[in-house]
Amino acid sequence: MPSAETPVSRALAERLVAAHFGVCGADLTVSGYPIRDLAQQFGTPLYIYDARIMRRIFHELRSALEEFADIHFSIKANPNPEVARVFVREGAGIEIASAGEYRAARQAGAEPARILFAGPGKRDEEIDFVVREGIGEIHLESMEEIRRVADAGTRLARTVPVAIRVNPVAAAQGGAMRMGGAASPFGFDEEDIDAVLARVLAEPALDLRGVHMFAGTQILDADTLLAQWWHGLDVAARIAAAIGRPLQTIDLGGGLGIPYHAGDRTLDLDAVRAALPSLVARQKSEPAIRDARVIVEPGRFLCGPAGLYVVRVNTAKTSRGKRFLVTDGGMHHHLAASGNLGQVIKRDYPLVAPARMDAGTDEPCSVVGPLCTPLDTLARNAQLPPLAAGDLIAVLQSGAYGLTASPTRFLSHPLPAEILVDADAAIPLRAIAQS
Amino acid sequence: MPSAETPVSRALAERLVAAHFGVCGADLTVSGYPIRDLAQQFGTPLYIYDARIMRRIFHELRSALEEFADIHFSIKANPNPEVARVFVREGAGIEIASAGEYRAARQAGAEPARILFAGPGKRDEEIDFVVREGIGEIHLESMEEIRRVADAGTRLARTVPVAIRVNPVAAAQGGAMRMGGAASPFGFDEEDIDAVLARVLAEPALDLRGVHMFAGTQILDADTLLAQWWHGLDVAARIAAAIGRPLQTIDLGGGLGIPYHAGDRTLDLDAVRAALPSLVARQKSEPAIRDARVIVEPGRFLCGPAGLYVVRVNTAKTSRGKRFLVTDGGMHHHLAASGNLGQVIKRDYPLVAPARMDAGTDEPCSVVGPLCTPLDTLARNAQLPPLAAGDLIAVLQSGAYGLTASPTRFLSHPLPAEILVDADAAIPLRAIAQS
Repeated sequence: MPSAETPVSRALAERLVAAHFGVCGADLTVSGYPIRDLAQQFGTPLYIYDARIMRRIFHELRSALEEFADIHFSIKANPNPEVARVFVREGAGIEIASAGEYRAARQAGAEPARILFAGPGKRDEEIDFVVREGIGEIHLESMEEIRRVADAGTRLARTVPVAIRVNPVAAAQGGAMRMGGAASPFGFDEEDIDAVLARVLAEPALDLRGVHMFAGTQILDADTLLAQWWHGLDVAARIAAAIGRPLQTIDLGGGLGIPYHAGDRTLDLDAVRAALPSLVARQKSEPAIRDARVIVEPGRFLCGPAGLYVVRVNTAKTSRGKRFLVTDGGMHHHLAASGNLGQVIKRDYPLVAPARMDAGTDEPCSVVGPLCTPLDTLARNAQLPPLAAGDLIAVLQSGAYGLTASPTRFLSHPLPAEILVDADAAIPLRAIAQS
Repeated sequence: MPSAETPVSRALAERLVAAHFGVCGADLTVSGYPIRDLAQQFGTPLYIYDARIMRRIFHELRSALEEFADIHFSIKANPNPEVARVFVREGAGIEIASAGEYRAARQAGAEPARILFAGPGKRDEEIDFVVREGIGEIHLESMEEIRRVADAGTRLARTVPVAIRVNPVAAAQGGAMRMGGAASPFGFDEEDIDAVLARVLAEPALDLRGVHMFAGTQILDADTLLAQWWHGLDVAARIAAAIGRPLQTIDLGGGLGIPYHAGDRTLDLDAVRAALPSLVARQKSEPAIRDARVIVEPGRFLCGPAGLYVVRVNTAKTSRGKRFLVTDGGMHHHLAASGNLGQVIKRDYPLVAPARMDAGTDEPCSVVGPLCTPLDTLARNAQLPPLAAGDLIAVLQSGAYGLTASPTRFLSHPLPAEILVDADAAIPLRAIAQS
C-alpha cells in the first residue's frame, strides 16, 4: 500500500535527517562531510558511522540514566572495534556474546573488568579464555554451564565472577509488554531460581555477584522498558534475599529500540528520565540491592542512528509500470534492510538520495541490489527523486546489525568500505575489498 | 503444530537418508564415512559435501535431459570451487552472477567459453573483466547494460557474445505456475522485446546469440517446469523470427527445487524425461531454433542434497516444559535453516542425530544456536532421540545456500570447517577458522 505508507516513511527519513545530519544545498552531510564526497573518496557501497552522533546519543542516554544505571555497549550490534572505542572512551563497558567479541572489546580499549559475557551456548574454550583474561562477569544460562564455568575456575585456580541470567515470568506490570514468560533458551526460568542459586552457591570457584534479566528487543515504548526494569529490581531483591547477602550487579538487559519503519515512534528518553526517581527510590529502599551497580546494555540504540549504508545506482529501469533502481549494494551487506533478519513483515527502512536533498521525492520505486535473486531488495515502496545510474542512495538507521549481520559472501561480491567520521577526520576502517 | 507436522518432517528425513546416505549401526555415513568420525577429525560445526551424491544427481539429471539440454551449474548455490569442480569434471558449464563467481568458476576448472553471466546490476569493472577473459555469454538485463557491454566490447576490441534475458508474460500453460508476468528487475519484459532487439542489433560489438528466460525458483512440480520450458522455446522462436536468423543458445533458467519441509515432494525426473520428446520435437520443428544449444542452469538441485551441516550439542535444557538443544552452530552458518533467507513461513529443515540412528526419535525439541538472539533457531519442532551435551545433529539438504548465504560475521564466531567427501578421501576445503 504505497499510497498510505510512503508519505509516513518519508516523514521518518525527514525526522532522522533533522535529528542527526546536516543538509547543505543538495547534499546530506555527516559531521560536515558531504556524503557525495565521502562516496567519491572511499567508493561505494560504503558504510559510514558518525562518532559525533554516537557520542551525543551516549551522553543523552547517560544523562537520562544518571544516578541509576551504568551503560555497557552490546557489541554484537556493531563489533567494529573503532565503533566500540567511541563508547569505551566515554566510559561505557561492553557486553559480549563470544570470544571473538571479547577480542573486539579489548581492541576497542575496554578493560577486562568492564566486559560482561552472556550467551546460551558458550564453548569451553571461550570460557577458559575469558576466565584466564580476568573478565568482569560471566552470565550463567544453564545448569550445564554452571558446572563448566566452575570447572574452568577450579582448573585455572580463579574465582570467577558470575551472574544468573533470569528468564522472567510473564509480569503483571505494563500491559503491552512481553518480557519473558515463554519458554526460552536464554537463562533460567524465574520460577526455578532457588535450585539454581543453591547449585551456584555450592561451587567455591564461582563468585555470585548479580543477576541479569533476559530482556526483549527493539522496545520503543518507555513504559514497557520501565516496567521491565522495575520487575528486574524485584527479581534482584528476591535473589538477594534468597542468598542472604547483597548483590553487586543488576543487569537489566538491553532492548532499547530505534525507529526503522513508517509509524515507529522514537523511544522517549524524557519519559524514562521522569520515571527514574521512583526506580532509584525502589532500589535504595532495599538494603540487599541498594549498593548494586545497575547496568543497561543497549546496542542498536547507541550506534544504529549513527550509521548510513550508501549505495550507487547502477541501472534504472522500468518493468510493467514499476520503477526499479538497481544499486551496487544490497542484502549481502545489509540483510536487515532487505527484511530478512527476522522481520515478519518486510517494511522499508528510511532512504534518502544524499546528493539530491533539494529535489522533490515524487518517484515511487523499488530499490534492489545486484544479486541474482528477488530477495535482494532494499526497499519495496521507496519515494525518491528521479534518479539515474551514478546517483547515490543512503539507507538510514544502518549503524547496528548492518554489515556483520549480513551474508557477505552471498554471490561473491566485494566487501563494502567502512569509515568512521569524526569532527576532524573521516577514517577508513576498511577499504573496499576485492572478492 | 508439532503433533501434525513432526511425523511428516521425520518422514522426509528418513526418505533423504534412504536416498543419499548409509546407516551403519548407530551411525549415519556419507560415502562410507561415519559422520561421527568426520566430526571428530575435522571438528564442529562442519559442512560436509559428498561428491558421489553430486555426481549421481548430475548424471540422473543429464540422463533425463539427454538430447534436449546442456547443464550449467548455478554457482551461487555453492561457490566453493571444489564443489563446482565436481560438476565441471562431469561436463557441466557454469552460470555466474558476479566477477567473484567468475573467478570461482575458473578455479573450478571451467573454460571461459562454458561460463554465462547473468545478474541485474553488473558493474563496469566486472563487464570489462569477463569480456577480456573471453566469457561464453553475457546475459543483458537492461538498456543501460546493452550500452555498457557494447562500450566494453568496443573499447577492448572484442565482439561480445550476448543473450537477452526475458521476463515472460504470465503464460497460459500450467495453471499453478507463476513464471513472470509481474514487474521485475531481471531482464526485459517480453512485451518490450522488439525495441530491445533493435537496440542490440544496432551494436556491432555485440553478437546476439540467444535468449535467457527469467525462471522461478524452488519448483517441485514437473508440469510447472515443463510449461516454463515450453514457453521458453516459444519465446526463443519468436525472437529468432524477429531478428531473422537462427539462435545459438536458449537458456531456460534454473528453478529445479528440492524438498526442504514436511509435505514437500521431490521433483519427478521421470515425468520430466517422459515429456521431453515433445519438447525436442517442438524445437526441431522450428528451423530458427532447431540447432540452438538448450541450457538449464540448476543450482540447489545439483548440490543441495549432497550437503550436511553438522553441529554438536553444547547444552541441553528445559524451559517451561519445552526442551532446547543449544548447539555450537546456528544461523550465522546456515541462515536458510533458521528460516531467515526469504522464507515467509519458518518451517524446519530435516534433521537427524547422525550418531544415534538406532535410537527412537521421540523427544520433541527446539534446536538453537549459540548466538544471543532468538533468531538463532535451527529447528522449532524437531523430533530427535534424547540428546545431551556432546551429541551430534545433522541438518540435511544443506549443500546449497548454506555457508555463503549466511551472516558468518554475526556475533564474531569462528567459521565452520568445510570438507568434501569422495569415494577415496575426505578432503578439508577449509579448517575451522578462529575468529
